[in-house]
Order: sequence, then structure tokens, then C-alpha cells
Amino acid sequence: MDARIAVLVSGSGTNLQALLDDPTVGPCVVLVVSSRPDALALERARARGVKAVVLEPGHYPSREAHDGAMESLLEEEAIEFVVLAGYLRVLSPGIVRAFAGRILNVHPALLPAFPGTHSVADALAWGVKVAGATVHLVDEEVDHGPVVLQEAVPVLPDDDEGSLHARIQEVEHRLLPLATRLLAEGRLRIEGREVRVAEPSGVAPTLPRSPSPRHETEA
Amino acid sequence: MDARIAVLVSGSGTNLQALLDDPTVGPCVVLVVSSRPDALALERARARGVKAVVLEPGHYPSREAHDGAMESLLEEEAIEFVVLAGYLRVLSPGIVRAFAGRILNVHPALLPAFPGTHSVADALAWGVKVAGATVHLVDEEVDHGPVVLQEAVPVLPDDDEGSLHARIQEVEHRLLPLATRLLAEGRLRIEGREVRVAEPSGVAPTLPRSPSPRHETEA
Repeated sequence: MDARIAVLVSGSGTNLQALLDDPTVGPCVVLVVSSRPDALALERARARGVKAVVLEPGHYPSREAHDGAMESLLEEEAIEFVVLAGYLRVLSPGIVRAFAGRILNVHPALLPAFPGTHSVADALAWGVKVAGATVHLVDEEVDHGPVVLQEAVPVLPDDDEGSLHARIQEVEHRLLPLATRLLAEGRLRIEGREVRVAEPSGVAPTLPRSPSPRHETEA
Repeated sequence: MDARIAVLVSGSGTNLQALLDDPTVGPCVVLVVSSRPDALALERARARGVKAVVLEPGHYPSREAHDGAMESLLEEEAIEFVVLAGYLRVLSPGIVRAFAGRILNVHPALLPAFPGTHSVADALAWGVKVAGATVHLVDEEVDHGPVVLQEAVPVLPDDDEGSLHARIQEVEHRLLPLATRLLAEGRLRIEGREVRVAEPSGVAPTLPRSPSPRHETEA
């Protein structure tokens, strides 16, 4: 696979690690951007020789200035795909539009249930018996874009937020590299809110940046 | 098991059939109430010798009159537990209060996602990859009470509303009899929104940590 992927992080970077460890995706991760200077994810990137940059929102005079710096960085690095892996900022509409259909996010719930930043605690508070993980394309609404992959995770009787989140993250670490590979290989067909996965061979290498013809064989 | 259970229906009654076919629950179903005179569910009840009554809302001068007739019927039949199995009416607050913690509903989605009467179509329109079924206790908000059992169901690439709904119903037909048995055996411990399942002895207030979701350990 030939692609230039940026991963945006804010924390420990276990999803970044899963991407770096994926034999297909890992070599294509060429840039890691963290919103926090102390993110362990930065160490993970540097340990693999991947360029690691801190863009701390508080260090910019305005939101626009920060977003402009991000856009410039992605452009300089010729980034084709952006993966949000625990990135605790909302991307600017400019970046979302510039990378339409080429940005993934991973979320620790079965969206549309439990969007937002406290989804695991919210799910436990609601008393669900089934939680899960979602990888979706990013649009201009938070935790809203078309779903690429979802997988259910059982809630066990004595779960707390930590134990349930850990079980969900195991699934995230499988789903996010897979979705990233499918996206970068041009195998995602987006029809409205529905995302279909095309067979690996014999498909056009072009990306689904506009509505695709429906002649592909489904996975 | 010794209990007097009423099942409220509006349609074909496949969930009623699953309850009637359950060796523990079936003999305890002593009353079926339909909001529609042409519901196939009525035939299913009569075929088992279960009292089948039509309470058609349109035939009452007011909502209160209809709800009063329902309350009187449940009282006359000494009903202890009420199961909503495709019942397309919202129960009156009076009945919900009178049977607090003793009414179950089955819903073809992983609540809180996709409440309401078009949940399967709504889930497909949203493009989810995981759907499911929920059995919950009924409170005074629609599709809202504490969750007893949930199970995920995969959405397949070429699903339409009919094929997905059929797959969900297979799960409903397992979950609803199981939840009804747990409720009627007094094994549900309701703590706020969390429902725990006690051991069959009815003594232990909690289950030990288990590698399986509790609805599987109870299966």
C-alpha cells in the first residue's frame, strides 16, 4: 500500500500503536500530531522514526491560527489521509472539507448511541448490556459521519469505566487499522450515510471523493 | 414457576408465540390483550386456550376510558406481570405505576439508539453496522426503562428493513422469554438504571465476575 497518513492524538496513543504495528498501515504513517506536549503517543511515534509534532491550541492566538498551522503542516507533508486516534479537538471545517471522505475517527461506543467525550461512563450510567466501538468517516458534525466499521462489546456485571473501556479498546485496536487500510486502498464506497467495502482486487485506485458508480462486488 | 402473566399485542404475535412456547413461561401466560381485532396474535392465544381480549382504543370515548378498561381487566385476572410484545400503544401512567418494575417491553434496537416505532428503518438509514434487540423494564418514558437484556445483531451489506428485522426478531424470541422468566422468578435486582440478575436461589444480590455477559451465563 502506498499512502501518506497522518495520525492526530492527544493521549497515550494505544490506537496509534495499533496503526504503527499494522504491517500494511504502519509504514504509511508519516506524521503524528499531538494537541498536548506530554502525550505518550509522541514517544511511540519517535520510537518508530515517525515525524512527531506538537500543535498546542493554547499556544496560538486564535482557533483560526491553530487550524491554519494544522492545515499547513498537513499540506507540507503531502498528507492524503488523516486518522483521529484519541484526538480531543474538533477539526476545523476547512480541514474536514479539504479531506472530505479521507478522515477517520474511532469512538468507544456504538454510535449514534453515546457520542461525546464521556461515552463509556454514559453507557454504564444508562445501564446498557452491549457497548462497542465505531470507526467512522468524519464530517462537520461531531461523532456523526458515515460508519465504516462497528463491533459490539459485552458489558459485564461488575464493569467500571476502566474495565469496560479496556475491553472496547481491544476492539478499537483491531477496527482502526482495518478501516484505515480499507480507506487508503480505496475500497470504501460511500453512498449517503452507507459505507460499503469493495473487494480488494480489480477496483479503481481512485478514492471515493465523489459518489461512486455501483458496479463493484461487495465484500 | 408460579405467576400470572398478561401479554399485550397489536400484530402477528411472534414474540407472544415465543413466550407461549417457553416451557417455563408459557403455562403462566393467562391473558392476551390486543389493541387490534385482526391481530394474528389473538389466534395464537386461542390456539393455546389462553384468554384473548380485544381492547380497541378507537372504541372508547376517551383515552382514560380505554386505560380504565385495561386496568380493570388486569385486576380481574389478578395479573402480576405484563409483557409488551409488539404492543403499539403507550401504557397509561396509572398502569405503569401500578405495575412498577413488573412490565417488560421488547424493542428492535440497542436502546438508547433508535427508539420509536421505525427503529429498524432508522438504523439502516443511519448506516449502522451493528443493530440489536433490547428487553427493558417499562417506565413512564417511551423506550427508556432499565435494560434487562440486550444482544447485538450484525447488519449485512444488502440488508433491507425486512431482512434485518427478521434477524433481530430471532434474537427477540430468545431474549423476551428469558427476561420474562427472570422477572417472574424474582431474580432481577434493579439499582437505578442498572439491572442485575441474581442466582436462581434468589439469595445472592450480585453475580460474581464472569467472562461472559450475564445474559449468556443465564441462558
